[in-house]
Amino acid sequence: MNFRIEKDTMGEVKVPADKLWGAQTERSRNNFKIGPSASMPLEIIYGFAYLKKAAAFTNCELGVLPIEKRDLIAQVCDEILAGKHDDQFPLVIWQTGSGTQSNMNVNEVIANRAQQLAGKTVGEGDKVIQPNDDVNKSQSSNDTFPTGMHIAVYKKVVETTIPGVRQLRDTLKKKSEAFKNVVKIGRTHLMDATPLTLGQELSGYVAQLDHGLKALENTLPHLSELALGGTAVGTGLNTPKGYSKRVAEYIAKFTELPFISAPNKFEALAAHDALVETHGALKQLAVSLNKIANDIRMMASGPRSGIGEITIPANEPGSSIMPGKVNPTQCEALTMVCAQVIGNDVAVSVGGLQGHYELNVFKPVMAANILQSAQLLGDACKSFEEHCAVGIEPNQEVINKLLNNSLMLVTALNTKIGYYKAAEIANTAHKNGTTLKEEAINLGYVTAEEYDEWVKPEDMVGSLK
Amino acid sequence: MNFRIEKDTMGEVKVPADKLWGAQTERSRNNFKIGPSASMPLEIIYGFAYLKKAAAFTNCELGVLPIEKRDLIAQVCDEILAGKHDDQFPLVIWQTGSGTQSNMNVNEVIANRAQQLAGKTVGEGDKVIQPNDDVNKSQSSNDTFPTGMHIAVYKKVVETTIPGVRQLRDTLKKKSEAFKNVVKIGRTHLMDATPLTLGQELSGYVAQLDHGLKALENTLPHLSELALGGTAVGTGLNTPKGYSKRVAEYIAKFTELPFISAPNKFEALAAHDALVETHGALKQLAVSLNKIANDIRMMASGPRSGIGEITIPANEPGSSIMPGKVNPTQCEALTMVCAQVIGNDVAVSVGGLQGHYELNVFKPVMAANILQSAQLLGDACKSFEEHCAVGIEPNQEVINKLLNNSLMLVTALNTKIGYYKAAEIANTAHKNGTTLKEEAINLGYVTAEEYDEWVKPEDMVGSLK
Amino acid sequence: MNFRIEKDTMGEVKVPADKLWGAQTERSRNNFKIGPSASMPLEIIYGFAYLKKAAAFTNCELGVLPIEKRDLIAQVCDEILAGKHDDQFPLVIWQTGSGTQSNMNVNEVIANRAQQLAGKTVGEGDKVIQPNDDVNKSQSSNDTFPTGMHIAVYKKVVETTIPGVRQLRDTLKKKSEAFKNVVKIGRTHLMDATPLTLGQELSGYVAQLDHGLKALENTLPHLSELALGGTAVGTGLNTPKGYSKRVAEYIAKFTELPFISAPNKFEALAAHDALVETHGALKQLAVSLNKIANDIRMMASGPRSGIGEITIPANEPGSSIMPGKVNPTQCEALTMVCAQVIGNDVAVSVGGLQGHYELNVFKPVMAANILQSAQLLGDACKSFEEHCAVGIEPNQEVINKLLNNSLMLVTALNTKIGYYKAAEIANTAHKNGTTLKEEAINLGYVTAEEYDEWVKPEDMVGSLK
Amino acid sequence: MNFRIEKDTMGEVKVPADKLWGAQTERSRNNFKIGPSASMPLEIIYGFAYLKKAAAFTNCELGVLPIEKRDLIAQVCDEILAGKHDDQFPLVIWQTGSGTQSNMNVNEVIANRAQQLAGKTVGEGDKVIQPNDDVNKSQSSNDTFPTGMHIAVYKKVVETTIPGVRQLRDTLKKKSEAFKNVVKIGRTHLMDATPLTLGQELSGYVAQLDHGLKALENTLPHLSELALGGTAVGTGLNTPKGYSKRVAEYIAKFTELPFISAPNKFEALAAHDALVETHGALKQLAVSLNKIANDIRMMASGPRSGIGEITIPANEPGSSIMPGKVNPTQCEALTMVCAQVIGNDVAVSVGGLQGHYELNVFKPVMAANILQSAQLLGDACKSFEEHCAVGIEPNQEVINKLLNNSLMLVTALNTKIGYYKAAEIANTAHKNGTTLKEEAINLGYVTAEEYDEWVKPEDMVGSLK
Repeated sequence: MNFRIEKDTMGEVKVPADKLWGAQTERSRNNFKIGPSASMPLEIIYGFAYLKKAAAFTNCELGVLPIEKRDLIAQVCDEILAGKHDDQFPLVIWQTGSGTQSNMNVNEVIANRAQQLAGKTVGEGDKVIQPNDDVNKSQSSNDTFPTGMHIAVYKKVVETTIPGVRQLRDTLKKKSEAFKNVVKIGRTHLMDATPLTLGQELSGYVAQLDHGLKALENTLPHLSELALGGTAVGTGLNTPKGYSKRVAEYIAKFTELPFISAPNKFEALAAHDALVETHGALKQLAVSLNKIANDIRMMASGPRSGIGEITIPANEPGSSIMPGKVNPTQCEALTMVCAQVIGNDVAVSVGGLQGHYELNVFKPVMAANILQSAQLLGDACKSFEEHCAVGIEPNQEVINKLLNNSLMLVTALNTKIGYYKAAEIANTAHKNGTTLKEEAINLGYVTAEEYDEWVKPEDMVGSLK
Repeated sequence: MNFRIEKDTMGEVKVPADKLWGAQTERSRNNFKIGPSASMPLEIIYGFAYLKKAAAFTNCELGVLPIEKRDLIAQVCDEILAGKHDDQFPLVIWQTGSGTQSNMNVNEVIANRAQQLAGKTVGEGDKVIQPNDDVNKSQSSNDTFPTGMHIAVYKKVVETTIPGVRQLRDTLKKKSEAFKNVVKIGRTHLMDATPLTLGQELSGYVAQLDHGLKALENTLPHLSELALGGTAVGTGLNTPKGYSKRVAEYIAKFTELPFISAPNKFEALAAHDALVETHGALKQLAVSLNKIANDIRMMASGPRSGIGEITIPANEPGSSIMPGKVNPTQCEALTMVCAQVIGNDVAVSVGGLQGHYELNVFKPVMAANILQSAQLLGDACKSFEEHCAVGIEPNQEVINKLLNNSLMLVTALNTKIGYYKAAEIANTAHKNGTTLKEEAINLGYVTAEEYDEWVKPEDMVGSLK
Repeated sequence: MNFRIEKDTMGEVKVPADKLWGAQTERSRNNFKIGPSASMPLEIIYGFAYLKKAAAFTNCELGVLPIEKRDLIAQVCDEILAGKHDDQFPLVIWQTGSGTQSNMNVNEVIANRAQQLAGKTVGEGDKVIQPNDDVNKSQSSNDTFPTGMHIAVYKKVVETTIPGVRQLRDTLKKKSEAFKNVVKIGRTHLMDATPLTLGQELSGYVAQLDHGLKALENTLPHLSELALGGTAVGTGLNTPKGYSKRVAEYIAKFTELPFISAPNKFEALAAHDALVETHGALKQLAVSLNKIANDIRMMASGPRSGIGEITIPANEPGSSIMPGKVNPTQCEALTMVCAQVIGNDVAVSVGGLQGHYELNVFKPVMAANILQSAQLLGDACKSFEEHCAVGIEPNQEVINKLLNNSLMLVTALNTKIGYYKAAEIANTAHKNGTTLKEEAINLGYVTAEEYDEWVKPEDMVGSLK
Repeated sequence: MNFRIEKDTMGEVKVPADKLWGAQTERSRNNFKIGPSASMPLEIIYGFAYLKKAAAFTNCELGVLPIEKRDLIAQVCDEILAGKHDDQFPLVIWQTGSGTQSNMNVNEVIANRAQQLAGKTVGEGDKVIQPNDDVNKSQSSNDTFPTGMHIAVYKKVVETTIPGVRQLRDTLKKKSEAFKNVVKIGRTHLMDATPLTLGQELSGYVAQLDHGLKALENTLPHLSELALGGTAVGTGLNTPKGYSKRVAEYIAKFTELPFISAPNKFEALAAHDALVETHGALKQLAVSLNKIANDIRMMASGPRSGIGEITIPANEPGSSIMPGKVNPTQCEALTMVCAQVIGNDVAVSVGGLQGHYELNVFKPVMAANILQSAQLLGDACKSFEEHCAVGIEPNQEVINKLLNNSLMLVTALNTKIGYYKAAEIANTAHKNGTTLKEEAINLGYVTAEEYDEWVKPEDMVGSLK
C-alpha cells in the first residue's frame, strides 16, 4: 500500500495515500482495534458536517475566518452530507470517550479535501485549510461531539422513529374503528373474562402509542439544546462574541430543525441527560410495542390449536422442517428490537452516570446506542405495519365460539342477583361442563327469559360511562 | 390464637379473631409466603382508601348505594388514611399480579370495620356492608389497583421526590452563585483542562436537576389518568352512567390532586406505561445525581493526598480502624440510591413489557419499585442537601495552587500563536517540569509581557458569548 | 423520651436511654433518614455476629484479647444470633457505602450489652468492653462488612434459594415422569407444531433448573472467600500473625459452612464481583423461571376460551367482580419475583462497577439486593411448587382434540414424499378447513393406509436418537 | 438489475441473478428492512457451515444421504468457512425469532453453489441439491440456529474473549510483581487511608480477572451442549437413529472444540439459558474491568492537578483545542465497552425470559448481543493491554509525597495507644495543618523515638498474616 506522511503535535504518521484522513485519525485506527471498523455511526459524521459548516459561517460572520476558507469548508461539508466521503471515516465507537478522534477525523478530511478542491495535492505544500486552526476554529471536541450527537439523534427521532411509530399507530387506529362492533371474549390473567370488542382492544394499543409519541416529543426540547460554543470546558474560551447563539441558528437553518444554543454549556458537556431522557422515551415505546406485538401473536396463534381469533398476513414459509407452517415473524422481529432497546437503555444509563467533572467520556457509546434504538424502532414499526398490522382481520367464527362459551358472561348478573349467587352459577357450570344458562335456571336464580335479557355480550361492552 | 370463620365463594376460612380482614386476605396470606409479610406498600392501601371513598360517594350520587352505606364506607376510609388500621394489611407484593387480593383486603377490612362502627360484632350476623357488592360496587380489582397505584405514585412524586430534588437544586443554585468568582482548574477526561469557576461547575448540576425535574413533571399528566370506571376489562361493565368521570372528580377532590378519568380504559388496565414513563424520569434523575455526587466526592477527596478543592461537612467518624477519618458518606448514600433506582427501572420495564391481553399482571411489582425509587430519591436528595451540599465550601488555597500549575492555560495562546506552537510550549514544559511561561519565552513564541497579558485564568472563564 | 450521653471521636451524642447502641449508630440514624428505618437486612447483622465472635476467639487465641472479653463478646453474639436484639439495629441501607455505621452499630451493641452482662449499667463507668479497641480488634469496617455480606448471602443461597428451587425442580421432575406418555401438540412461534409429550415439555423445565442450580453452585467458591483479615485496605494492618486464616476457620466452624480466607484481600475489599457473580446466577434462574411460569399459565389458560391443556389448582377467588374466576396467581407471583430479580441484577452491577481504589462503597446496596433476590426466588419457588406445580394435571380431552386437529402432523410425511408435497397437503387442508388425511389422499400423494401408518402422533415424539 | 425466478412453498420470487440465495432469503430481505442490511453476524453463518457439513457427514454415514451430495455440501461449507461467500448472507438480526430465514439462506446458498460446483447453472434445471430435503436433512431451524449460536459464541469466547482478558491479566500480574515494593497511600471512600504497595493494588485487579475468567470458563460446559438432533420441537422427529450424538461428534471434530449433544433437547430449543449464563460471566468481567480502568485513570490523572501517582502511555493528542493534552483514552474505550456489555446483558435477559412453549424466538437478538460483548471485551482488553497497561509506571516522587503527608499513618498507633488517642492526634494535625508526629508528641502520647519506630509506612503493608 502507498502511504504519505501526515503530522500532528506528537510527530509523523504514515497514512494510506488514497485516504483523506490525517495523522490523528490514523493513530486512532491503529490504537483502537476494537470490534468492526468504522462502527462510529455515519449519522454522527453528518451531524459534524452540519456543525462544521455552521461554525465556518459563524466564524466568518464574526470576522475570524476568511470567506474563502468558509466556502471551502462548507463545500466539503456539503459533499459529506451528500454521502460522497462515507469511506473516509474509519474510526470506531470504542475510541476516546469524548469523540475527539472522530472530530479530528472530520477536521482532517475537510482540510485535505479542501486541499484538493483548491487544486492542490493532499500532503504537499502548506495546508490551505488547517484542521485545528480553521476547521475546528471556535470549537473543541468537547462541544462538537455532543452537538453532532444531538443533531444526529434529533434527526433520527423525527425522521425515522416518529414516522415509523405513527404509521403503525394510524393503521391500528383504522383497524380499531373497523372492528368496533366485533364483540369478543376478554381475557385477564390469560383467563376468560367479560367481553369487549376487538376495536376496543386495539384502541388500547393506539392509546399506548399516542402516550409513547407524546413522551418522546416531550424530550425533544432538551435534545434541541446544542453544546456548541462551550468549547473545552463549557466556558466558551476562544470563541468570538455572539458565537454560541449564531452558530446554533445556522445549524437550525441548515438542518431545518429547531435547534438552540444550550442555556447551560457546563451541563451540555459534562452530562448527557438529554440522551438519557430521549432514550427513556424510546424504552417506553419498546415496552408498549412488546405488549402489542405479544398480544397480536397470541390472538393469531393456531391455526387450529391456538387462540386464532385474528389472522395476520402469511409472508414467508415458517419452517424449514414443518411444511405449511406460517409464523408471526413481524411480531418476532419487533419484540427482538424491543429487547435490544431495553438493553440499550441500560447501556445509555451506565454511560450517563459516569461523567467526571467537566466532561462525560461515554459520548460515543451513548450516541451509538440511542441511534440504533431510534433506527430500529422506527424501521420495525414500519415493517410491522406494512407486513402485519395492515392485514389483521378478525376470525369471526372463532371469536363467536369462544365468546359464547365463556363463563364470565355471568358477571352481567352481579347487579341483578349479587356476586355470590353469580359465582355459584359459574362454578357449577364449570364443574358440570354445562352452560351458564342451564345452571342459572337449575339453581333457580333467574328465569330463562331473565337470563336472555340480562346476559347479552353485546350489551356488556358498552361505551364507558 | 383465636379464630373466627369467614367465607368467600370458595368456602370457609379461619381468620385470626382480632383481625378485620376476611377470607380472601387470609387465603392470600397463606398462599403467598414470599419475602417479609406486609410488603405491599401502605401508600397503595391509602390510594385504595381514597378511591373506595370516592366510589362510595359516586355510587350514592348515582343512586346505586344508600347514603348510610356510603357514610360507613367513607368513615372507615378516613380511619385508614389516618393510619389507624396499618396493621390490617398483611399481604405481600408477590401475590396475584392484578393486586386482587389487596383490593379484597381493603374491601374486607372496610366491611368488617363498618360492622363494628355499626355497633355489631365482626363475624356475627349479616354483614351491614358487603365487601364485594357494596365496597367494591362499580369496581373491579383490575381498575382499582391501577387507580390506587396512580394515586400513590403521584402523591409520592409530588410530595416527596420533587420537593427533595428541588431542595437540593436550590442549595446548589445558591452555592453556584456564591462561588461564581472562584476560578479553578477544569478537568476533562479526569485530566487538567482550561479553567472555569466553581460556580459554573455547580451551575451544570443545577441545569441537570432542572432538566430532570422538568422531565419528571412531563410525566405527571399520564400518571393523572385513572383507570377507575373500566372495571373488569376496560368496558365499564356494571358501572352506572356517568360513573367514570364523577369518581375521578371525587378522587381529585379528596386528594387535592388533578386526577382525571383515563380517556382510554383499555390502556389503563392492560398496560402501565404511565409507570414506565414516570420511572424513566426518576432514572434520569438518578443518572444525574450519580454524576453530581461523584464529582463532589472527588473534589472533596483528601484531605491531604486527593484533590481537596472543596470541603464538605464532617458528620461522622469515618472509620472503625483509621482514627480521624472522615468520608463523603452522603455522596455514598445518594449514589447507592441511584444504583437502586437504575435497577428498579429495569424491573419496571420487565413488568411493563409482559402485559397479556386485557390486563397487565405485574402491577404490584411495578408499583412497589416506583414507590421505592420515588421515596429514596426524595429522601436522599434531602439528606444530601442537609448534611452535605449546604456545607460545601471552596478550599481556596488548594484551588489556586492547582489552577496555577496547570499546563492547559496554554490554550489561551491558541488564538494568538496557533494550536501547534501552543502544543509545543505545553509539551516542553511537561517534559522539563517547568512552567508554561518559561518555555513560552524560551521557545521565542511570546514575550513575558504578552504571556502575562494573554494568559489570565480569570479571563478564560468568561461568560458565554 | 429519656436519653443518655454516648461519646465517639467527634464528641457527645444523645442516645435513647433504653437502647443498646451508641454514638455512631445514633449519628447515622439522624444523618440518613432515607426510606424506612432499619432497612439494613438482619441477615447482615447476623453475619456480623458470627464474625465478631470468630474475631474474639481468634484474637484471644493469638494473645491479643483476654479470655473474659472473648467470652463476653461471644455471649452477646450468641444472643444476637438467637434474635434477642433485633430491635437494636435501626440503621438503613442508604448510609455510608462501606457499611461502617452498621459495623459500629454491632460493635456498640455488643459493648453495651456486655456492660449489662458484666453487671454494670450502660453508659455508666468505664466500658468493660470497648467497641473499637475490643469488639473491632483486628478488624475494619472494610473487611468486616464484606465478610458479613458473604456470610449472609452464602447462608441465604444454601438455606433458602437452593432448597426452594430444588423443591420445584423435583416436583417438575416427578410430573415429567408421570406425564411421559401424554402426547400433545407442540408449539413453536406460538403456532401449532409437531407433537411431543407433556412429560418432555416438563423435562425441559427440569433441565433449565438443573442448569440454573449448577450455575448457582459454581458461584459458591468465590462467595466462600472472606475479606476478614484485610482490615482497612487489604494489607492486614493491625492484625496478629496467623489471624486471617484462623478467623475464617472459626467462621466456618460457627456457621458450619465452608468459608475460607480470601487469597487476595485487595480484591475482597475493593470489588464485590463475588456478589455480581452469584447474582448473575440468580438472574439466570429468574430468566428460566419466568419462561416456565409463563408456559404453565398459557397452557392452563381458559377455562373455556384459552388453551386449557392442563389444569392447575384453584387457590383463591380470582376476581372481585367476575364471579367464579380462578387465575394462575402463583405464576404471577413468581414472574413478578423474576422481574424484580432481573432489575436487582442491574442494581448490583451498577454498584459493582463503581468501586474506587481500595474500597467499593456500594456494599450495602449490593448486599441488600442479592439478599432480596435470593430470598424471593427461594420463597417463590417453594410457594409455586406447593400451590401450583404439585397440582398440575393434563386435561386429556382438550389435549387430544388439539393434537388431532393439527396440520403439523404432516411433517411425518417429509421423509416419505418430500417437504414440498407435504407443504402442499398442509396448505390445502388449511385453505379448505379439511383434514390432512383427506387432502393427502385427494392430492394423490399417499393412500389412506399409508397415511394411517405414517402419521401417528405417538410415533413422532420418539426418544431422541 | 437482472433477476432469476426462485420458488418456495409459497410461490415464485424474483432474486438478483448474481446471487446464490433463493426465494426465502429474498422474501426475508424484502420483509425485514430493519436497520442496516446483513446485520446477522457472520460468525453465526460460519457456525451453520460447520453444522451443515457435520449433518451431511452424519446423514451419509447413517444411510440417508448419498456420498456425492455429502461431498458437494461439505465443499460449499468449506468455501463459506474460507470466507468466500460472505456477501451471500444479506439478512438482518431482526427477522423471525427462530432464525429460520438465515437457516434457509444457508440452505439456499449451499444448494445453489453446489449447482455451480456440479457444473450446472443456478436457477436452471433440477436442483442437484435440495435446500430443504438435502441440506436441511435431519434438521430444523429450531435446532440448527441454536447450534450455530453455540458454535459461534463458544469459538468467540475461547478465541477472542479469554485470550484478550488473559493478555491483560498477565501484564497486570507482571506489573504487580514489578511494583511490589512501591509503597503508596491507600484510599478508601476516595479519602486517604493506610498505605499499601502499588503491586498490591494491581494484584487485586489480577484477582478480579482470575475470578472473572474462572466464572466464564464455568459457563462453557452449558455452552458446549448442542441442540442439533432435536429438529422441530426437541423430539428429534425425522432424524435417523444415532444422529444426535454423531452429528455433535462431527462438529467437535471440525471445530476442534469439545461440543456434545445436549442431553435435553427441549431445553436447548425452548430456552437459551446457556447464553444467559455465559453473558452473565461477560457482564461480571465488564463490571471488573470498569473498576480497573477507572482506578487507573484516576491514579494517572493530572499531569499537574490530579493524583498523578502513575503514568500511562501518551498515544494520541488528547484535545482538538487544548494543546499538549494527553488523555487516558484506552480506559475510556474499555469503560465504554463495559457499559455496552452491561446493557447487552439486559437485552439477553429480556430475550431469554420470553420463550414460549417449545421455542424461544429471541434467538438472533440474543446471539448478536453475546457475540458483540464477547468480541468487544476481548478486543478492548487486548487494546488496553497493548496501548496502556503495558506502559504503566509509578511516578515515585508523587507517590512519596502523597504517602508521607497522609494522616492515616496514625492507624499504626491504634495497637499502641488505642483508637481514641490516635484519632485525637489525627484530628489535631488536620485542624492545625501540621504533621502527625508533631501533634503526637505535643499531645504527649508518644515520644519522637516511639513515633519513628512505630509509624513506618513500609511496615504497614506487610504480607497478610
